Amino acid sequence: MLKVIAVGKIPHHLKEVQEFYRSKIEKLTNFEIVEIKKQRTKDEEGNLLLKKRKGFTIALDERGKELDSVQFSKLIEKHPNISFIIGGADGLSETVKQNSDMILSLSKLTMQHDIARIVLLEQIYRGFQIIRNTPYHRE
Amino acid sequence: MLKVIAVGKIPHHLKEVQEFYRSKIEKLTNFEIVEIKKQRTKDEEGNLLLKKRKGFTIALDERGKELDSVQFSKLIEKHPNISFIIGGADGLSETVKQNSDMILSLSKLTMQHDIARIVLLEQIYRGFQIIRNTPYHRE
Repeated sequence: MLKVIAVGKIPHHLKEVQEFYRSKIEKLTNFEIVEIKKQRTKDEEGNLLLKKRKGFTIALDERGKELDSVQFSKLIEKHPNISFIIGGADGLSETVKQNSDMILSLSKLTMQHDIARIVLLEQIYRGFQIIRNTPYHRE
Repeated sequence: MLKVIAVGKIPHHLKEVQEFYRSKIEKLTNFEIVEIKKQRTKDEEGNLLLKKRKGFTIALDERGKELDSVQFSKLIEKHPNISFIIGGADGLSETVKQNSDMILSLSKLTMQHDIARIVLLEQIYRGFQIIRNTPYHRE
């Protein structure tokens, strides 16, 4: 089971791209996007996010470890149960970071959290293409 | 003038998010997205891309220099005429890289070029919010 756990519904202008990648990934693995409701504080959001995780837990934070796409693909190849946690507008609580197995940075740039979700989805799809050695990923 | 020069039309599933950020950025600066037609080779695409640039030229490549969002905002603050060049499916030709003032990496991850365009647009919008010191960008 591969899970992406995030705060709030994806905004309208990103819905179509989310569905584009969701349908591609669902064909490749047992996949779920879990959206928790926005809370008053990031601590409350963090506790809800952590409750939804299963397996190897990766928190997304721009100060985390950066990987290239091949390294990222090895991560999803290694862990059949994996949960990616993306914070809301205020980022992730310390509790989430402390209770995760890894803190991953998609970029040094700060990205709006829903954009980060889309970058992650494309990267998950790319990861499976790297594992399967299809032409999608070219160096 | 701030230009984003890219290969091919944005696919349907990314159109709405592109327009979302385009309309926001157009309110802040003289802004243009230039799409050249896909060519047979990245060398041909590179020559067309270079013809469209104006001012300080930044080529996007995952092996380039990584900035954080504050550093990125300083770049757009410093150069009133700036062109960002994004390659197509096969990336950028060496000629583009050699004729650019800077090679910028949005991430160590390889991103699909249209996704990179969206990440760049959000980052340009964020950059203006950092320059104007609005609450959009929070550390």
